Amino acid sequence: MTSSVPSELPTYDDVKDAAGRLHGLAIETPLLESPLFNDELGFRLLIKAEVLQRTGSFKFRGAYNRVSRLSPEERRRGVVGYSSGNHAQGVAAAAKLVGTPAVIIMPKDAPAMKIANTRAYGAEVVLYDRVNEDREAIGERISRERGLTLVHPFDDFHIIAGQGTGGLEIARAARARGLRLDAVLVPCGGGGLTAGLALALAEESPGTEVWAVEPAGWDDWKRSFASGKIERAGGHGSPFCDALLTPSPGVMTFAINRRLVRGALDVDDAAVMKAMALAWRHFKLVVEPGGAAALAAVLTGALPVKGKTVCAVCSGGNVEAAVFRTALERFA
Amino acid sequence: MTSSVPSELPTYDDVKDAAGRLHGLAIETPLLESPLFNDELGFRLLIKAEVLQRTGSFKFRGAYNRVSRLSPEERRRGVVGYSSGNHAQGVAAAAKLVGTPAVIIMPKDAPAMKIANTRAYGAEVVLYDRVNEDREAIGERISRERGLTLVHPFDDFHIIAGQGTGGLEIARAARARGLRLDAVLVPCGGGGLTAGLALALAEESPGTEVWAVEPAGWDDWKRSFASGKIERAGGHGSPFCDALLTPSPGVMTFAINRRLVRGALDVDDAAVMKAMALAWRHFKLVVEPGGAAALAAVLTGALPVKGKTVCAVCSGGNVEAAVFRTALERFA
Repeated sequence: MTSSVPSELPTYDDVKDAAGRLHGLAIETPLLESPLFNDELGFRLLIKAEVLQRTGSFKFRGAYNRVSRLSPEERRRGVVGYSSGNHAQGVAAAAKLVGTPAVIIMPKDAPAMKIANTRAYGAEVVLYDRVNEDREAIGERISRERGLTLVHPFDDFHIIAGQGTGGLEIARAARARGLRLDAVLVPCGGGGLTAGLALALAEESPGTEVWAVEPAGWDDWKRSFASGKIERAGGHGSPFCDALLTPSPGVMTFAINRRLVRGALDVDDAAVMKAMALAWRHFKLVVEPGGAAALAAVLTGALPVKGKTVCAVCSGGNVEAAVFRTALERFA
Repeated sequence: MTSSVPSELPTYDDVKDAAGRLHGLAIETPLLESPLFNDELGFRLLIKAEVLQRTGSFKFRGAYNRVSRLSPEERRRGVVGYSSGNHAQGVAAAAKLVGTPAVIIMPKDAPAMKIANTRAYGAEVVLYDRVNEDREAIGERISRERGLTLVHPFDDFHIIAGQGTGGLEIARAARARGLRLDAVLVPCGGGGLTAGLALALAEESPGTEVWAVEPAGWDDWKRSFASGKIERAGGHGSPFCDALLTPSPGVMTFAINRRLVRGALDVDDAAVMKAMALAWRHFKLVVEPGGAAALAAVLTGALPVKGKTVCAVCSGGNVEAAVFRTALERFA
């Protein structure tokens, strides 16, 4: 486990700075609500629809905030990133906008749509074996050999600040409707989105609890919060939530989240699939498994929310048709 | 065919007035775009995502604008409407907000989700046989017998003005991004949405062509535009686009659309199903068959749009799971 103390952590001001940089490029995604579904649930549920973000997930925010800050020399050489697929598309799209070459290291078993889209943005895709190879080692080797700037998927100052911009939007949209948010639940892999949102919400919506939601078996955040230091996930979880399969928190994301995040919740595959079907039915949104984890936690009652006002971030929508059809078949 | 001259038609000012009334109640739905899909298409495609509107379709806009204007006495008695399902939900939701009882006459073969949601908003649902019974006659009888105000699904001053509010949003969102819209394509049944949008766009985006899109076989608008008077649809079209199965234009909607709409296009079921799958893939939206008709017309090249900037309105997302799964199975 890396145990170095992070050199510098982003703050609320860095999130605001990222928002300025993303203005007109990232989509200000809506905060959706279904009064009918609220009545059924007995609490007020808001959905931050990041599936509608450029590239189909929140990852464009952090990626552009990072890639657009390359020096002219770095930009000439290009970037390398590793990703299960959403950061891949975010970096590829940002690199295309900025005009820099991108190499993306992706697991062989990543959803075909994610691989195809990453290539369609013009990136070179290098596939690896998620079980037997170490993506970080491959990334560092390619970075060194080819002189490319490594764009980490979560443990990076500007990535975290960029992901936080959605938090400014959540807080402002809630305020505009006169809502006080009791909790915001966030799908959590490496913790970059959670950390960014927590930075934004701590300033903009101080009474709001932020919760990290991870797939059952990938409980590295729960373990790390419990022990107070970075831990690896326990047993072997299912790979269904392909976007959230990180083995342990990042150094920077852990330093932020242990301070600002209330705790971690976990959800099983059936709850996630049901959440996908309910997002389809009530919000007309296509949500991928990992993107539906926070909604699943809200709907299974993992957190007591009766009578409260709760926001679930639906963080991505890049899902294979067969998987989506199965979710509808079982739960719609 | 009714041939009376409409007493008074709504104008741009009535659309603006409706927008004020809907502020904070209707959702200002996003104008979505996929740069990746644009590259593939060779033109710039914007999606007005009315599937994200309250009740899952644009119909809430007109319904609330109408129902909120009842006199105290009318409000005490209640409203009656007939609808294939989206106007039903719009009227039921508006009636609930306003605190007036609602009776909705729906075809027996309407999608189960639409019937269930209409009931969930507290409306009384009366089912009829779409082939052998006349919904207008049933509506007028119930209105007379029970003293209820009839809320027409499209041929009504305030309904048209309310539907137009989405047009103000389209024009303003395009302007904010520095876009000039060459055309806006609209799914068209009775023509209320088309008329409202055309009123808004004629003032806010004067160079933009508005096109009505109807299902093949339900070509009453094409015929009516051709002859210059209200005509019934020709042969028997498929009922796949359940939201667009009106036999002929309304008196008011025809008077507006013949003046402001460039023409009518038609699309077959396969094109609609493919558009549903592409909206799922590229925009992460759930679109129902009728709601996808305009997108289908754009994608099949029914209108030459190479190099242009075109907006397709995705007007509703209330679709059965089995239908949606089939669209994904065939085209995703």
